[in-house]
Amino acid sequence: MASLGRRIFSEWLGTAFLLAAVVGSGIMAQKLAGGNVALALLCNTIPTGAILVVLILVFGPLSGAHFNPAVTAALAWRGELAWTIAGGYITAQIVGALTGVWAAHLMFELPVWQFSLTQRTGAGQWLAEGIATFGLLLTIFGCAARTPAAIPYAVGLYIISAYWFTASTSFANPAVTLARSLSDSFAGIAPGGVAAFVLAQLGGAAVAVAVARWLWAGSK
Amino acid sequence: MASLGRRIFSEWLGTAFLLAAVVGSGIMAQKLAGGNVALALLCNTIPTGAILVVLILVFGPLSGAHFNPAVTAALAWRGELAWTIAGGYITAQIVGALTGVWAAHLMFELPVWQFSLTQRTGAGQWLAEGIATFGLLLTIFGCAARTPAAIPYAVGLYIISAYWFTASTSFANPAVTLARSLSDSFAGIAPGGVAAFVLAQLGGAAVAVAVARWLWAGSK
Amino acid sequence: MASLGRRIFSEWLGTAFLLAAVVGSGIMAQKLAGGNVALALLCNTIPTGAILVVLILVFGPLSGAHFNPAVTAALAWRGELAWTIAGGYITAQIVGALTGVWAAHLMFELPVWQFSLTQRTGAGQWLAEGIATFGLLLTIFGCAARTPAAIPYAVGLYIISAYWFTASTSFANPAVTLARSLSDSFAGIAPGGVAAFVLAQLGGAAVAVAVARWLWAGSK
Amino acid sequence: MASLGRRIFSEWLGTAFLLAAVVGSGIMAQKLAGGNVALALLCNTIPTGAILVVLILVFGPLSGAHFNPAVTAALAWRGELAWTIAGGYITAQIVGALTGVWAAHLMFELPVWQFSLTQRTGAGQWLAEGIATFGLLLTIFGCAARTPAAIPYAVGLYIISAYWFTASTSFANPAVTLARSLSDSFAGIAPGGVAAFVLAQLGGAAVAVAVARWLWAGSK
Repeated sequence: MASLGRRIFSEWLGTAFLLAAVVGSGIMAQKLAGGNVALALLCNTIPTGAILVVLILVFGPLSGAHFNPAVTAALAWRGELAWTIAGGYITAQIVGALTGVWAAHLMFELPVWQFSLTQRTGAGQWLAEGIATFGLLLTIFGCAARTPAAIPYAVGLYIISAYWFTASTSFANPAVTLARSLSDSFAGIAPGGVAAFVLAQLGGAAVAVAVARWLWAGSK
Repeated sequence: MASLGRRIFSEWLGTAFLLAAVVGSGIMAQKLAGGNVALALLCNTIPTGAILVVLILVFGPLSGAHFNPAVTAALAWRGELAWTIAGGYITAQIVGALTGVWAAHLMFELPVWQFSLTQRTGAGQWLAEGIATFGLLLTIFGCAARTPAAIPYAVGLYIISAYWFTASTSFANPAVTLARSLSDSFAGIAPGGVAAFVLAQLGGAAVAVAVARWLWAGSK
Repeated sequence: MASLGRRIFSEWLGTAFLLAAVVGSGIMAQKLAGGNVALALLCNTIPTGAILVVLILVFGPLSGAHFNPAVTAALAWRGELAWTIAGGYITAQIVGALTGVWAAHLMFELPVWQFSLTQRTGAGQWLAEGIATFGLLLTIFGCAARTPAAIPYAVGLYIISAYWFTASTSFANPAVTLARSLSDSFAGIAPGGVAAFVLAQLGGAAVAVAVARWLWAGSK
Repeated sequence: MASLGRRIFSEWLGTAFLLAAVVGSGIMAQKLAGGNVALALLCNTIPTGAILVVLILVFGPLSGAHFNPAVTAALAWRGELAWTIAGGYITAQIVGALTGVWAAHLMFELPVWQFSLTQRTGAGQWLAEGIATFGLLLTIFGCAARTPAAIPYAVGLYIISAYWFTASTSFANPAVTLARSLSDSFAGIAPGGVAAFVLAQLGGAAVAVAVARWLWAGSK
């Protein structure tokens, strides 16, 4: 692990790149896809999964490459991260997520300050966010127990899959959810839907922590 | 290997995620693809292959990550798994597959209980299922003999390929076949076609066991 | 290396799966793509690259996983394979390639015996085949010299790329070229174009052997 | 490292293949995509990322596989490469890039000598090129510090992502930028836009060198 300053910086910069990729590729994909939403989502999915692999390879050895308050909270629940440091991580992730969204808007010469109008709500989507976050954390815990070098690839592939099999396109990340409410583009979510998504994500994370404690008991 | 309870749980949960991904991404892909079936199938293929890599990485060290009665039966035929344990595995896989299909229906707010109307039958499709399962098991046995760490990636890539080169889109898994008969969505199969598919799959698996015994004799 | 019988069998079966994937996914892709040729080619490319990774992982430790007379000839030129064995390999590859094409036709319930009507000819295409085969062999020789475990992935990714950047969609394999002349489907080539393609491929391979001898002198 | 002659040759040949892939797959994709620009860009993205992985695997052990004057300059700034050798590298990269573009034109039987008419300019695009190059160099420096064997995969995946999340489709390479101004095809850039792109790229590279010096201080 690097010094705390470098860890916080890594969480900030990594989350910024993640959101720039999610929102930027969403803007590009929608602009070019000629109204075919499956094609637009595919061209949003592949860049997102690819950048996740890269960012975890680059920043994993520095900060652990969480980029996600649900991951940070889960590791604090497991006692692998002090809550004071977790607070710093989560702050950096939220600021980083906003930085990334605004960088995407600047690159595509769109207004920086936006609110999404895309309604994402309902029991199906909340179940989807719970399942998506549960699966993401099992992926991380499972690989961490036995094949830690595979984590970057596993997380990227998991998100590529979860974009499609969850009804919500798998936000699975409170900082990402919040930041995407500030982009009225393909990947956006109307601000009114954020709180329920975050609750579902934290619920999924809590279940994952409990299941993982039993499943990989004694392996770490 | 983990305790038997954790192994059974892993087969159940892993197969549930596999089917949620197959059926969920099929629903999402068909909904968004604007009638282009190749695009829908591509957006069904990539999430399926991706989640397979992840699930085998996560659950492989716990249960072997079969998620497939044809794989479990083949390992029992090879004497690498007791038939009593194989029975538990296969039960968990079938229950898990149903769990996954129903979870996908719930996430997409569709009726939970459905029957597929998609006819999949005929000699070409049965040959396809035989070949698909034969190839899947050779992939597993071949990698197990020399490069076991590559199994997760090899199985994911094999299924991505077999979705397209087999006329049946490569079910290659009796539990998957049964469960997909209970989803009237893109990835479904009408119940009347299930038995012949399963027979073809077990036939392909039996040939693979025989060929592998000769091909990798003495290597394990 | 396995016994000679197993090596020949591996070359036959591996080449059969390769051609079943190339021709089968071409049939499926064209059938579903609704006339969009880029989409059809993408759905032909990904399964081809994916199965190549798998087949080289599975059969590489047995036979070297050539599946390609240009590769076998190049290794014989380099003195790494006796010409008598090379003859057996090449025969197995040609028979395997035909087996794979016919298996694809059977799975899709098409006439087994066909001739392609797709004209593929001209200086641009011959240059493309020369470059494609040159690059394929440099990929193999380069990885063999320093990172042999990466060969399966490198070859799969190379073919995925070469499908698109060569004007001929990169056959780069005399057995594949011959067998694809016997399929009047998306991936076919009219028989009259075969000889020139094969000559260009062997020319590219010869240049690669010469360049590799200098570039990696002393490294193997 | 190989002898200087082999290093220069590797930079030339690798950059030639990179540009042949970028421009060739762009021509093929545009020709087949039936006017859907997202599909064309996807079919340009995947071959570019794939060939990058292959070329870095093949030529990395020989020359370091820069293929990019911004990478070469950054390594010289870091003191890891003598400026005299850097000059040779950059010359080889520029000549190689032109070779690749012209080879693509020859394969597709287009006029060899062309100028692009595609205007790529404006503050958003320059910011995009700065961010793209900054991220590319952080990817290289970060992996080099801890997981050097992952560099080929990380760079390929980074470019796949950056094609979509940057408004400029991420040239991120002065030699690539210059060479693509000489191709009036999908991947081209009008010559008038080259200088500003190159400046933005070198700016991004300089920031990356400074950040990396702090972030991975003492790790190499």
